[in-house]
Amino acid sequence: MFNTIGIFTKSADDLATAYFRELNLFLKQKGIKTVEFSEPDLDSAKLSLNNAIDLAIVIGGDGTMLRVSRLLAPLGTPVVGVNRGRLGFLTEISASTMLHDIDRILDGDFFIQHRTMLSCKISQDKSITDHACAFNDIVIGRGRIGRLIEFEIKINGKLVTHTRGDGLIISTPTGSTAYALAADGPIIDPALEVITLVPICPHTLSHRPLVVSGDSNIEVRLINPEIADVIVSVDGYTEYTINNDEWLNITRSETNVKLVHLTDYSFYEALRSKLGWSNHLGSK
Amino acid sequence: MFNTIGIFTKSADDLATAYFRELNLFLKQKGIKTVEFSEPDLDSAKLSLNNAIDLAIVIGGDGTMLRVSRLLAPLGTPVVGVNRGRLGFLTEISASTMLHDIDRILDGDFFIQHRTMLSCKISQDKSITDHACAFNDIVIGRGRIGRLIEFEIKINGKLVTHTRGDGLIISTPTGSTAYALAADGPIIDPALEVITLVPICPHTLSHRPLVVSGDSNIEVRLINPEIADVIVSVDGYTEYTINNDEWLNITRSETNVKLVHLTDYSFYEALRSKLGWSNHLGSK
Amino acid sequence: MFNTIGIFTKSADDLATAYFRELNLFLKQKGIKTVEFSEPDLDSAKLSLNNAIDLAIVIGGDGTMLRVSRLLAPLGTPVVGVNRGRLGFLTEISASTMLHDIDRILDGDFFIQHRTMLSCKISQDKSITDHACAFNDIVIGRGRIGRLIEFEIKINGKLVTHTRGDGLIISTPTGSTAYALAADGPIIDPALEVITLVPICPHTLSHRPLVVSGDSNIEVRLINPEIADVIVSVDGYTEYTINNDEWLNITRSETNVKLVHLTDYSFYEALRSKLGWSNHLGSK
Amino acid sequence: MFNTIGIFTKSADDLATAYFRELNLFLKQKGIKTVEFSEPDLDSAKLSLNNAIDLAIVIGGDGTMLRVSRLLAPLGTPVVGVNRGRLGFLTEISASTMLHDIDRILDGDFFIQHRTMLSCKISQDKSITDHACAFNDIVIGRGRIGRLIEFEIKINGKLVTHTRGDGLIISTPTGSTAYALAADGPIIDPALEVITLVPICPHTLSHRPLVVSGDSNIEVRLINPEIADVIVSVDGYTEYTINNDEWLNITRSETNVKLVHLTDYSFYEALRSKLGWSNHLGSK
Repeated sequence: MFNTIGIFTKSADDLATAYFRELNLFLKQKGIKTVEFSEPDLDSAKLSLNNAIDLAIVIGGDGTMLRVSRLLAPLGTPVVGVNRGRLGFLTEISASTMLHDIDRILDGDFFIQHRTMLSCKISQDKSITDHACAFNDIVIGRGRIGRLIEFEIKINGKLVTHTRGDGLIISTPTGSTAYALAADGPIIDPALEVITLVPICPHTLSHRPLVVSGDSNIEVRLINPEIADVIVSVDGYTEYTINNDEWLNITRSETNVKLVHLTDYSFYEALRSKLGWSNHLGSK
Repeated sequence: MFNTIGIFTKSADDLATAYFRELNLFLKQKGIKTVEFSEPDLDSAKLSLNNAIDLAIVIGGDGTMLRVSRLLAPLGTPVVGVNRGRLGFLTEISASTMLHDIDRILDGDFFIQHRTMLSCKISQDKSITDHACAFNDIVIGRGRIGRLIEFEIKINGKLVTHTRGDGLIISTPTGSTAYALAADGPIIDPALEVITLVPICPHTLSHRPLVVSGDSNIEVRLINPEIADVIVSVDGYTEYTINNDEWLNITRSETNVKLVHLTDYSFYEALRSKLGWSNHLGSK
Repeated sequence: MFNTIGIFTKSADDLATAYFRELNLFLKQKGIKTVEFSEPDLDSAKLSLNNAIDLAIVIGGDGTMLRVSRLLAPLGTPVVGVNRGRLGFLTEISASTMLHDIDRILDGDFFIQHRTMLSCKISQDKSITDHACAFNDIVIGRGRIGRLIEFEIKINGKLVTHTRGDGLIISTPTGSTAYALAADGPIIDPALEVITLVPICPHTLSHRPLVVSGDSNIEVRLINPEIADVIVSVDGYTEYTINNDEWLNITRSETNVKLVHLTDYSFYEALRSKLGWSNHLGSK
Repeated sequence: MFNTIGIFTKSADDLATAYFRELNLFLKQKGIKTVEFSEPDLDSAKLSLNNAIDLAIVIGGDGTMLRVSRLLAPLGTPVVGVNRGRLGFLTEISASTMLHDIDRILDGDFFIQHRTMLSCKISQDKSITDHACAFNDIVIGRGRIGRLIEFEIKINGKLVTHTRGDGLIISTPTGSTAYALAADGPIIDPALEVITLVPICPHTLSHRPLVVSGDSNIEVRLINPEIADVIVSVDGYTEYTINNDEWLNITRSETNVKLVHLTDYSFYEALRSKLGWSNHLGSK
């Protein structure tokens, strides 16, 4: 099923390197060709990929998974994550059961879940000045604390609201367990094709997170951009400082991430484990 | 387009009666046959309906709209609401522009939005003991304050969580602006086919609202049912007291509500108006 | 320092009984007189107490602590709690270190923290129809789900708000980590003399918890009491069904609970432990 | 009672200037000496004040009130605010009733409320590198979005929590209706002497706002300061970038603001008006 597998690690991480060696040996013994990729050279890797691998195994944290997933989405390569320590939302396989679980995948004991990504275009006049893809979220936030930002949201050309606050998170279902959750957004089943808008510390106390169709065309424009210091970040990395007359256009990306899950995978198990859902207030 | 129109009112409401007369006269002059239905006789009306009307116009509040919509969903009859005073989430047409707006609908200046409903089955052993349909929400709550209820949620057979608190709201997108919103749930685009689970005052502080596919099979079972006093309510009306060995099964209903919207309808306009989104903290 | 110590347990609890025996023997060997009290006979015990004990040691959960503390508050007897298993907010001493910690208390290695209690009077016309004391909270809630309650709050005779929802929690600082916390109230340093009002699922989305002076006179009156089914519960036990023309008056109680803490006690340690503050979203 | 009154305005604000002239004439006719101060020269005014005025009247928004209040707190001069348009939390007198209300104050129809301020010291090794006073809040936040900050909070030398997120608001009761409210903090009676700690988008989902005694000594230290870009802002203005080995120490300020309120002033009236507490979800 998989003839060539890419193994992605953080080069500076000794533990990941040890797991890489173990996994690499295991795959070679199975007669599978492996290709090694390690951060921080992932971007240059882009050019040489060309569908050369049939499956990507990422050994690392959710951050590395985000980067590799974005890189491989246009190529359609399925991705699976191995966490080095704690279970991650994206790194489903534990290092302690790595060989056993990868073997199950080689045997076909998996399914592929298509995960929505977001496309963010920054426009000025009628031209697009910049563009980025997000697997978790696009965040419009203020550059320095101490100043509110004020913006207007439109969906499919219709005004949603004109609001003020610390900013706005526009999140995929995958991103609903990341920053959006800290800002009090809902948890979204990752298989859904919806987009969530979560205001960050809104000054309108009745504002609430909003879940809209994945087919929505979301437009965010600054009000009084001349006094604002507004930054757009993608999956947690700061990418752009917005100029006065720029505006954002966010839609579902044309490509999506193909995430490999073991057949008995449960999103809810990750929720319970990572969010500490066994901790109750008070005793019975 | 519409040959026979049913007009639904609350019989005891003088204002609604006045609007009814005005509307009835207007429709008759247009050569449209009208049938009058008034609460509290709506249930008996059920039998005589039989597709006899092509459109239902409800003059009343969101409560009357909920009841008429549930009644007509299995018949597939489109419904439009006229509010007597304040704009409602479901009663989109203002009484003050009623004739003009109904005329636009007669002229075809509308679209029909299919709204998800929920089906709730209560089972004991292997038989279903009761059944109900909800347009807004199914609420599992405690009968008397002072006692937590403890329950387990499964989706498609997989454990989601075992939790304690005041209860659980299982909401349609339409219900997301009703009780679920007061319990800190997200606002859901009413055209989506998703189901939202909102815990009410959960004793696990990391619990959050959860949005899942409309195709989900949701199962709720009580833990320690012998000490619980648990009530299930449907669209705000108490329907059932759960016995020890009963459990709930909630899915999307096979029928849905066909809501008539004027072509220029905006869900966001209703949000801004009803949630007071123009009120900001502090001045600029 | 302590000549006679009362030991309070739940009679039906074998584990508590075992700890009782161990503690009782230990105290007798120290030449301290002990008196045993066990639930459910605590109320009859009231009469015979009369300052006969200098210290109360409660072996049980936070629920037993609440009852014993309310009972002893008017007598001014200091109370300390031993939890049988999990650390409680009120049962600070772990059973596993019980003898060692009680010995520290006998040696004077403790301080007494005065904890605010609430007094709740229910009035009709000009007479008080009922009265209760709470250590955690007074909750005004709806008797059955499916019906909102609507009420008006005044503080020191000034209107605070007229609101609708599931109810209202009026909490002591001690109660801030109980039901009020599940309803999204703030955590209050238990040594403060303040009262917190936390709305339960308010239908006014801009409502927020309100912290007022311990000297406040809080008045709660129902709006449309004829259609309401309203219950008042005290520390989690349902006590009263409110009649049409009754209203509530809540103030700080004249007595307070004298809670014994080991000198190195930290409220924050209990918070971190019980609220799982070591669980973070995502990895670094 | 007041022989010399200072009138504070924003110089560039025409409307405020018109109100100033009207007020100035009115006071002179009463035989009261007036002194004019206008932004942005407020700081230089500091030197010449020296108790020269008995009362400060501020014509402006809550922002101008914050600055004048901080300036006058050490001198003990009472302050009253006149809003030019919308009611502010601090600018209680409406311009439309200005002369009438100021006349009531001259007649003694007022009370003075002492409002808590915060003192923030930034230390390195054993020396204090900087110092500021806040009337609303001290905010520890990240300089650029896209990076969490991680910090440890101690109160009176005891560890409260070690947490990650967007930051922390340390607020006076006055500040509880400002930024802290947008971050989901409770509303605090402004007459209380407490301090509120509100985490901003905490990554520990069970974190909640914490209300502690006004006598608390709050210490905030960064974890991994070498990778952080952390900013401290005071009353909404960015003041400091924290260096690696600096830490914050926050206590109640020795001085406080003396706010003049008309005798019939109600904090709750401002809450209802500014937070839109008349907006309910749904109809009855």
